[in-house]
Amino acid sequence: MEVAIGAHGRFERGSEAMFTGEVWMRRAPAGEDGTNVAIVHFSPGARTRWHRHPDGQFLYGVAGRGRVRTRGEPGYRLTAGDVIHVGPDEWHFHGGDGDAPMIHVAVNGGGEAEWGDAVTGEEFDEGF
Amino acid sequence: MEVAIGAHGRFERGSEAMFTGEVWMRRAPAGEDGTNVAIVHFSPGARTRWHRHPDGQFLYGVAGRGRVRTRGEPGYRLTAGDVIHVGPDEWHFHGGDGDAPMIHVAVNGGGEAEWGDAVTGEEFDEGF
Repeated sequence: MEVAIGAHGRFERGSEAMFTGEVWMRRAPAGEDGTNVAIVHFSPGARTRWHRHPDGQFLYGVAGRGRVRTRGEPGYRLTAGDVIHVGPDEWHFHGGDGDAPMIHVAVNGGGEAEWGDAVTGEEFDEGF
Repeated sequence: MEVAIGAHGRFERGSEAMFTGEVWMRRAPAGEDGTNVAIVHFSPGARTRWHRHPDGQFLYGVAGRGRVRTRGEPGYRLTAGDVIHVGPDEWHFHGGDGDAPMIHVAVNGGGEAEWGDAVTGEEFDEGF
């Protein structure tokens, strides 16, 4: 059993290779198959770049209000208690809402994510 | 993208085949490899039976205070923000603390869990 204690965890600033805007994240131990967990805090308007996970991803809404959208699909406003599953290889983004911060837990399948372009202001609003 | 909206989710009472005491859970969609997510509410003293997951399990503490222990190891008191990883095939239990309820998110690997004996009162206190 491995424990990543919330009270002691180190937060790191989300890098520009993955995020737009101010994002802070805390990583937890990975499983044997590479599955890993991160707690991610997005400021309002902050978001991931477009990206995809070969083994999919689960998001659990902890607090605030955010946006999640798979490219070409309608967007969804994530709030506390929601669980979202993004399938393998779906290009998608997640982040805070335009006027609200958001905290989610992300559970990522074992394979390495592929990171694409930044989500433009127009793309951030599309589908919401 | 699949969404399990917290505001609309159905809670079911945890069965005696898996739990001791009053437990309520809400399940979310599973991934392609069978990975699945559940939000579990334990009353004080309520807990799982001893069980193990062939592909391990992650627990994320949402609220309250609980107990988690792998058989033969020291116990850990889970609070909000903690992330615990239980390895494949570790016999373990989780539940509320003796005097406190606990809510956690459980992320279970794809394989079917194996359920064993109920956790006795002595076992519930051992290692804490």
